[in-house]
Amino acid sequence: MQKDFLEVKSLYRKSEEYVGKKVCVAGWIRTARISKSFGFIELNDGSFFKNIQIVVDENKLDNFKEISKLAISSAILVEGELVKVDNAKNPIEIHATKLIVEGDSDSSYPLQKKKHTFEYLRTIAHLRPRSNTFSAVFRVRSVVAFALHKFFNERNFVYAHTPLITGSDTEGAGEMFQVTTLDMANPPLTEDGKIDYSQDFFGKPTNLTVSGQLNGEIMALAFRNIYTFGPTFRAENSYTGRHASEFWMVEPEIVFADLEDLMELAEDMIKFVINYVLENCPEEMAFFNSFIDKGLFERLDKIVSSDFVRITYTEAVDILLKSGHKFEYPVEWGCDLQTEHERYITEEVYNAPVFVTDYPKDIKAFYMRMNDDGKTVRAMDLLVPGVGEIIGGSQREERYDVLMDKIREMGLNEEEYWWYLELRKFGTATHSGFGLGFERIIMYLTGMSNIRDVIPFPRTPKNAEF
Amino acid sequence: MQKDFLEVKSLYRKSEEYVGKKVCVAGWIRTARISKSFGFIELNDGSFFKNIQIVVDENKLDNFKEISKLAISSAILVEGELVKVDNAKNPIEIHATKLIVEGDSDSSYPLQKKKHTFEYLRTIAHLRPRSNTFSAVFRVRSVVAFALHKFFNERNFVYAHTPLITGSDTEGAGEMFQVTTLDMANPPLTEDGKIDYSQDFFGKPTNLTVSGQLNGEIMALAFRNIYTFGPTFRAENSYTGRHASEFWMVEPEIVFADLEDLMELAEDMIKFVINYVLENCPEEMAFFNSFIDKGLFERLDKIVSSDFVRITYTEAVDILLKSGHKFEYPVEWGCDLQTEHERYITEEVYNAPVFVTDYPKDIKAFYMRMNDDGKTVRAMDLLVPGVGEIIGGSQREERYDVLMDKIREMGLNEEEYWWYLELRKFGTATHSGFGLGFERIIMYLTGMSNIRDVIPFPRTPKNAEF
Repeated sequence: MQKDFLEVKSLYRKSEEYVGKKVCVAGWIRTARISKSFGFIELNDGSFFKNIQIVVDENKLDNFKEISKLAISSAILVEGELVKVDNAKNPIEIHATKLIVEGDSDSSYPLQKKKHTFEYLRTIAHLRPRSNTFSAVFRVRSVVAFALHKFFNERNFVYAHTPLITGSDTEGAGEMFQVTTLDMANPPLTEDGKIDYSQDFFGKPTNLTVSGQLNGEIMALAFRNIYTFGPTFRAENSYTGRHASEFWMVEPEIVFADLEDLMELAEDMIKFVINYVLENCPEEMAFFNSFIDKGLFERLDKIVSSDFVRITYTEAVDILLKSGHKFEYPVEWGCDLQTEHERYITEEVYNAPVFVTDYPKDIKAFYMRMNDDGKTVRAMDLLVPGVGEIIGGSQREERYDVLMDKIREMGLNEEEYWWYLELRKFGTATHSGFGLGFERIIMYLTGMSNIRDVIPFPRTPKNAEF
Repeated sequence: MQKDFLEVKSLYRKSEEYVGKKVCVAGWIRTARISKSFGFIELNDGSFFKNIQIVVDENKLDNFKEISKLAISSAILVEGELVKVDNAKNPIEIHATKLIVEGDSDSSYPLQKKKHTFEYLRTIAHLRPRSNTFSAVFRVRSVVAFALHKFFNERNFVYAHTPLITGSDTEGAGEMFQVTTLDMANPPLTEDGKIDYSQDFFGKPTNLTVSGQLNGEIMALAFRNIYTFGPTFRAENSYTGRHASEFWMVEPEIVFADLEDLMELAEDMIKFVINYVLENCPEEMAFFNSFIDKGLFERLDKIVSSDFVRITYTEAVDILLKSGHKFEYPVEWGCDLQTEHERYITEEVYNAPVFVTDYPKDIKAFYMRMNDDGKTVRAMDLLVPGVGEIIGGSQREERYDVLMDKIREMGLNEEEYWWYLELRKFGTATHSGFGLGFERIIMYLTGMSNIRDVIPFPRTPKNAEF
């Protein structure tokens, strides 16, 4: 049955092939203007951002009366002739000769033509993918995911599936969700009155992972170049538009490779993804550029044609101190850079993407490689105009002794890291990796400003609907 | 730095380009046979299944003594000439002129050359990807993942990311993991002494999903054709070689499409994936065919060249009853088919993949479309020789009233399904979808018989190591 119905995408992309011929399509009514004997239906079949116009005529359709009463969102099957029209916006339309109602609708349909707020649309997440904006966002999300897979696959990276349920806490920090099958109302206790986790499903306490990196390093030290791409979790009680409790992350890890290689990889990846989405989603991107973020194309073009700047954290701090600019958070060497600082550097100083490297060791994670100065680590953040930080990564500490000292110094449980340490014992090698928040790049590419609007069914504090 | 080191894969695939030239590689010593003044090192750099042979000669290398003592798994950087050799197995080798030790190793390295059991290798999951078998398995896993993305992308399917943390139980069944941030030792209680889930992170009890299907249907009814590909969870206390607590699933959902379309999609997908992996992993697949499953190529070739059989459940039961074969579990109309029954049909009766359709409604899920007979639903399972069921799917119940009756009949909470029901109210349409257990297909393609050996870091009852 499905192959009887051409995709609207094909009608547009290969219109020469179909004009003048009988075609069948199936889709949902987006809008309809129907008078007594004649009318127009805008049909969307989900295969394409644009609608196809269906011309309905009393003289050609037995059930014209039924048709004229159809509500928005009704599903219909249409047969008719594809006709070329002298209209730049809608160069083709279908003159219907048969129209079957597959599933009707009524006036209670919550997604009427009038403009709704994004906030309201979140409450009807089961219908919002049918709106222009969310149809564009979620298709771009899909295309960017494919672009990333293609990018890494072409470079012979192995796609590594790292576990989500974990018995350890990757970064030695971060608030995590606990995973359990114990009866919370009546948990088993040990003799001294504590929860008896030996009776939990995995025989110990487990959480949802905040990063696949440590497992990714295992895979990289076998396959040279790998990446992960999957969900990660943060149980942070953060209500900002930039944080979700469940989000996707891309984490490449490369071996016999230092921070310079890593920055090159990040730059290539960002440029590849931008070019790919511009090429493969022209209609959606034009929509964002017109209705969501008027400077979008300019901003993306700028990035694709820029050489990304590379400065050290120390240089960045100098620039900020000498800028004379008054920041809400004062700057001094050793402080973490705030979004206002990051944006000042990438927007005001360079107006280009900027890698900032070699951060003070005290504000970075234990696994980052110590520099010879004993004060900084071989970390990098990529800052982009309009957003700030979009990627964070580092060269990893590959020296067993240095890593062990760091684990002890930070009070981490070295027994939990036995296998991570062993990677440094049996053929250790220079290696580096970064994490890209997948939703961050989707926000960047679409101009959408709330992370809840780039995830089909977002999870945030107090919200796990749908 | 990384680009200084050619991938071993390139040396093999483009050997004509490099023979006679100076090349640099970086990798790990798999084996070494070194005498007083001369020797051979088998180097693997992770980019390729095969090793490259490094010839080391006292006369050419200052540090020959150091080299001769290197333990298996040491990481080294090698410069030398690529030389063509008259040896079908190893047509090229590198005559080293420089060799730098990047990270040494010692005799305590647990992955020595002798053959280890798969069980033992699971206890060193941080090193097993460096063995031949697991290097091959995890690369095939990666390549199959890409093949699936490519298959669906070429067909204009939207890749939909459905949430893992869920407030509902998709199938109205299945044992789930609970996700919480409450303090289990001291949870907040309501006035009547129950756990106060309003204080939990999401304001209500939440679990890890067992399927993305219901959310997938939302996306399909906007985009026509979609698929999910991500982790799913089952908190089953099952210790078999076929069940893991965390595994990946592929779930396409297609609209204006019935069960016939769905079976065609499944058949096309399986054949595409087999052809893709045979073409893109010839070395790995030859290894599996030689050392893991001697009938592998024959079995896969057979599938690719077969037309998949389609029979109804009722026909299948007839065949089993008339077969005269003695089964451990007796067969009668209405019973669920056991693996022995499934394998008898696909192996003994047809010796080909078989779709079994139209199962009794009482053994299938609430969302499957009721047939006119009132006794069966429009479900399908795909059975393949050697494994049994590999795919399960159905046409979905798209009729609001029929679905509502079913939800009530099965005692499900209709309020929880409000949005799922609304999809049937606003432009409902014929649609269908299936689930493919990703690990099942990897097992099928590699001949590996335990699911723990096709997941890099498996989670099973009492086991969440690494």
